[in-house]
Amino acid sequence: MTTEAQQFASDNYAGICPEAWAAMEAANQGHAPAYGDDHWTHTAADAFRTLFETDCEVFFAFNGTAANSLALAALCQSYHSVICSAAAHVETDECGAPEFFSNGSKLLVAQSQDGKLTPEAVRAVATSRSDIHFPKPRVVTITQPTETGQVYTIDEVKALSAVCRELGLKLHMDGARFAHACASLNCDPAEITWRAGVDVLCFGGTKNGMAVGEAVLFFDRALAQDFDYRCKQAGQLASKMRFLAAPWVGMLENGAWLRNAAHANGCARQLAEQIAELPGIELMFPVEANGVFVRASDAVLAELRMRGWRFYTFIGGGARFMFAWDADPARVDQLAADIRAASTATALAA
Amino acid sequence: MTTEAQQFASDNYAGICPEAWAAMEAANQGHAPAYGDDHWTHTAADAFRTLFETDCEVFFAFNGTAANSLALAALCQSYHSVICSAAAHVETDECGAPEFFSNGSKLLVAQSQDGKLTPEAVRAVATSRSDIHFPKPRVVTITQPTETGQVYTIDEVKALSAVCRELGLKLHMDGARFAHACASLNCDPAEITWRAGVDVLCFGGTKNGMAVGEAVLFFDRALAQDFDYRCKQAGQLASKMRFLAAPWVGMLENGAWLRNAAHANGCARQLAEQIAELPGIELMFPVEANGVFVRASDAVLAELRMRGWRFYTFIGGGARFMFAWDADPARVDQLAADIRAASTATALAA
Amino acid sequence: MTTEAQQFASDNYAGICPEAWAAMEAANQGHAPAYGDDHWTHTAADAFRTLFETDCEVFFAFNGTAANSLALAALCQSYHSVICSAAAHVETDECGAPEFFSNGSKLLVAQSQDGKLTPEAVRAVATSRSDIHFPKPRVVTITQPTETGQVYTIDEVKALSAVCRELGLKLHMDGARFAHACASLNCDPAEITWRAGVDVLCFGGTKNGMAVGEAVLFFDRALAQDFDYRCKQAGQLASKMRFLAAPWVGMLENGAWLRNAAHANGCARQLAEQIAELPGIELMFPVEANGVFVRASDAVLAELRMRGWRFYTFIGGGARFMFAWDADPARVDQLAADIRAASTATALAA
Amino acid sequence: MTTEAQQFASDNYAGICPEAWAAMEAANQGHAPAYGDDHWTHTAADAFRTLFETDCEVFFAFNGTAANSLALAALCQSYHSVICSAAAHVETDECGAPEFFSNGSKLLVAQSQDGKLTPEAVRAVATSRSDIHFPKPRVVTITQPTETGQVYTIDEVKALSAVCRELGLKLHMDGARFAHACASLNCDPAEITWRAGVDVLCFGGTKNGMAVGEAVLFFDRALAQDFDYRCKQAGQLASKMRFLAAPWVGMLENGAWLRNAAHANGCARQLAEQIAELPGIELMFPVEANGVFVRASDAVLAELRMRGWRFYTFIGGGARFMFAWDADPARVDQLAADIRAASTATALAA
Repeated sequence: MTTEAQQFASDNYAGICPEAWAAMEAANQGHAPAYGDDHWTHTAADAFRTLFETDCEVFFAFNGTAANSLALAALCQSYHSVICSAAAHVETDECGAPEFFSNGSKLLVAQSQDGKLTPEAVRAVATSRSDIHFPKPRVVTITQPTETGQVYTIDEVKALSAVCRELGLKLHMDGARFAHACASLNCDPAEITWRAGVDVLCFGGTKNGMAVGEAVLFFDRALAQDFDYRCKQAGQLASKMRFLAAPWVGMLENGAWLRNAAHANGCARQLAEQIAELPGIELMFPVEANGVFVRASDAVLAELRMRGWRFYTFIGGGARFMFAWDADPARVDQLAADIRAASTATALAA
Repeated sequence: MTTEAQQFASDNYAGICPEAWAAMEAANQGHAPAYGDDHWTHTAADAFRTLFETDCEVFFAFNGTAANSLALAALCQSYHSVICSAAAHVETDECGAPEFFSNGSKLLVAQSQDGKLTPEAVRAVATSRSDIHFPKPRVVTITQPTETGQVYTIDEVKALSAVCRELGLKLHMDGARFAHACASLNCDPAEITWRAGVDVLCFGGTKNGMAVGEAVLFFDRALAQDFDYRCKQAGQLASKMRFLAAPWVGMLENGAWLRNAAHANGCARQLAEQIAELPGIELMFPVEANGVFVRASDAVLAELRMRGWRFYTFIGGGARFMFAWDADPARVDQLAADIRAASTATALAA
Repeated sequence: MTTEAQQFASDNYAGICPEAWAAMEAANQGHAPAYGDDHWTHTAADAFRTLFETDCEVFFAFNGTAANSLALAALCQSYHSVICSAAAHVETDECGAPEFFSNGSKLLVAQSQDGKLTPEAVRAVATSRSDIHFPKPRVVTITQPTETGQVYTIDEVKALSAVCRELGLKLHMDGARFAHACASLNCDPAEITWRAGVDVLCFGGTKNGMAVGEAVLFFDRALAQDFDYRCKQAGQLASKMRFLAAPWVGMLENGAWLRNAAHANGCARQLAEQIAELPGIELMFPVEANGVFVRASDAVLAELRMRGWRFYTFIGGGARFMFAWDADPARVDQLAADIRAASTATALAA
Repeated sequence: MTTEAQQFASDNYAGICPEAWAAMEAANQGHAPAYGDDHWTHTAADAFRTLFETDCEVFFAFNGTAANSLALAALCQSYHSVICSAAAHVETDECGAPEFFSNGSKLLVAQSQDGKLTPEAVRAVATSRSDIHFPKPRVVTITQPTETGQVYTIDEVKALSAVCRELGLKLHMDGARFAHACASLNCDPAEITWRAGVDVLCFGGTKNGMAVGEAVLFFDRALAQDFDYRCKQAGQLASKMRFLAAPWVGMLENGAWLRNAAHANGCARQLAEQIAELPGIELMFPVEANGVFVRASDAVLAELRMRGWRFYTFIGGGARFMFAWDADPARVDQLAADIRAASTATALAA
């Protein structure tokens, strides 16, 4: 099968990075115990503990839908609720998975500026009702970076966790692109998670260069009670667990997780810088991670499609470009050039 | 990490077979659309249709827990029930997964001889009650081969499906080791499934040589309505689906699926033949697939453990040996020799 | 225990009307079969069929939470979604019950003018997405009359059901105060339900004068398949069913259901007419059923509380007054007089 | 509607006892706050606390299906399991309700002599497995009296609770006929519940003379956390709660609950004593509560039916007779006489 020219429609379109692949190859030697009782799984869990500088509980799930939904279900009962932003992936793109895994926990949408929650918005929702006809808020979930590529600063997370503590809420972080946030903030993973008050992190592996897999980290070990049973019952326990764990070893031990993310972030900035000042082109959100959201006229977007680019669009004329661990800078330049050309042609025609 | 000498405790201890690995490697070239809209996924689905000689609906799930539970949930509502044997994996080893995915469908245990259901046993349960205080039977699930390595003949499956049709029940086949049944029966997959009246098959890839993955085949396409949504919501939709699909292509297109199973079955027979007549050794079940269940005294089992063997034991002194796609015949001979030695030593001591 | 002066905080504060009481008393003679296999239950179901002029399927549930949630669960699977208004009781006041009973069906909020859905709003939500990451819309639910006391006309319901048919959606009517809608429209129940395209109606008994109980009517009998099992499993099957059914007989056979509602509606109009023109007083919604929503300054509301009135308030200074089957017109006049006095005093003070 | 001659097929066939009726009538005066914030509900809860001599948490549910299922769901997560006897109502007659309310908690059947669990049987199940493929046992549920009318002694309950404490299990008592157990044991309710180690009791009102309703008592208040939300979400919160609560006040405050049960028990003994020695008649179980289980030949049972009696039958020729609070002793004598006649006639014919 032939390889097509890179598109930047999604960072899920990329394959497996060399470090993850090599670790899978190494893991594929001989036999090993099943269901996580193997050397690779123990090593991967320890690698997370080292990276996060804390003795957290670590679990592996097949994908982000499951990791986030299981984590949220562990933090609340069916009659509780989860506060999130209107743009949260758990709210918009999981086909009701959080409600399914929790057997009915309702997601409550808090007001947000471009998808980033604030302490005020959390407080407003959490204190809006206190009667039993309304599901009791128990968890706040934030996506780091957000679905539109913005990164919560350490202080922002601390402010959110403070209001959570005050109101008896747990703080969950959907880190489908957590590595990109670390690369963007240039901070230790611990700083932006448990030291800032995060209770549970779902650390995404797929968008970071793995074939499949997400890690769930409980910084408060008490919250992880029987979570292994929960994973098993929900179809998230791999029998040949080593193949879910080994890629993490490969990526964590030599820093590939961070290099991959930094490269992707860099490509996003590369595009943004080249198109920011173009006529008729507007960056919809600050470019802080590996995505660029471009507002442009229908004519510009049509021209881009004619030139062979594929991308998701949003209401109001936005186009999303996402950069993977293996994004080709030359292709980024091509994209920038085509946007420039489309923009100029359209401006002239007007 | 060092490779240990092969144990036969589980066929999950083996790694990825060369054909599956090569396909993953081939799939890992460049970018591809996510969520199953890629060439590999389409090719894998078509390969199943070719193999089964029918235009079935094909879905991919991460593991058997999910595949079977999702399939059962698709066949019944929460207030319905599923008839199975007391030995069925869904009853004994899934931590309540079928009940979780279906939101409460009860498993009803039918009497069985060594885990194989009969039409009479199905009928007895299905017609035992007809009041609304008892969950209405809607599905029969059989494991092919059974958890103890016995294979339903085509006629046995036909007899079961006949009673299912008569009583308005659907027939589901848990094929965690489906390939081993085909190798054992030496029949076309179609013969033992849809042509024999099976409505849905879960075809196991992991025990057949893959890293992860199970295929769900709906022979009655109407039953598959919106099953893609069901998979998504339940955390079973892989974003980089090609890596779940490609190994199937690699294994189906050149017959590795069947060779792997035939090899494993052969190792089981190899062991069985060498130990069947030994004093104090009894084969608990006919050896028709890749497992051998040995009844022996505690002394014999202890001696085997002393000689370095690991295996699961059962009430009454049974030991299970399971052979994977890469089982080493020389090791099988070693095991047979050690059983012979342990058996003889114990017989002499008695 | 002493009787307090009537408040109009809720129409749930009233007791059992004489007709319902008399029927319960009549039903409490001797023994009767359990679980609905009794004369009263059959008679009540027939009374509904007569009233609605159709051979619908009739079930009895304990309350509206369950009736609506069970009905919605019967119309969709967990990965489907339900379109409702932001003001819908199922969205705002059921503590996640619809999600719980359906095991995860998401409620999608459509834009609405004061809580009344329109075909355009339904279409906008139903056609907004068609990918599997978004729960597939399957049901539209409307509250008749709405939570703020507005009544859908027959034409409005017909327009909604037309778009439902076109888009493959079922139409559910939450009729917690269905009788009040009939009284308001002065139409046959059939006209505003199945003849207008409603598939399932939950007809509320509690707010209509019963102690407990709601009827679920399936006009499309195919949708009711196994609904009795669903009710049983969900804890909604009364053993002494006659006491849930008999009050319906008492209320339906002599028209009490409609008289009660008409009386309550009349009290609402009585209040509205007396206060509509007062300075600083505004009716927030057209008064079409048994509720009056009054916008007034904090000072006016405080004055009313000082005069002993209790009521629910809303953001922006609204007060809700709800009138039950036994609302005392003299008390309504007192309330009107107190609102006038509070309004005048506050206007003078300004 | 005419009253038929009393049958003893079920104690659910009886109506509402005078004390419960009078309390409902008293409660039906004027208006009262909804959802349990009324005087009757508070009084009923206090009456339970007085009766049980402890400050327990008290909730009201509509029926036993819901009360037991909600209580079990509060004691375990979906991946936990509940140990019960094969005869337990939750296992045999709830259409999967416990699994539905808990979202998948599996019921594990322990061996029992005639439906009474023993510490040994509980231990055997609870310690049979400790791997994550098997749902972790968390609760033991016993029915007091059992479904076949046997009563656990105080010492038996203490022995069960001791093993529960040792193994980290909670002890739940399904008291659909709890009053009958108290009457049979002639003990304080506290003795057979919390003082004997029971954590949660579901106290049945329906079979004790009420129209509808069951009380859930948490002796360990910590286990009741947010149980009110759980009830609400599951459709078990009555808006006009006073009508669910008042009957309890009427029955608890003057001892009707115990008189009703004692009367029913007495009728069972009355029958048993008259038929115990008859030829061809065998009492299947000790008669300790309000049920009599009679083994007799098909001919005898046919003769009884010919004489107009209706009853449930069991495998092996058993007939169940259940006596309600209003069982007519004269009819009991008629039944005894008819059994005698049938027995004698059949014996002569043989």
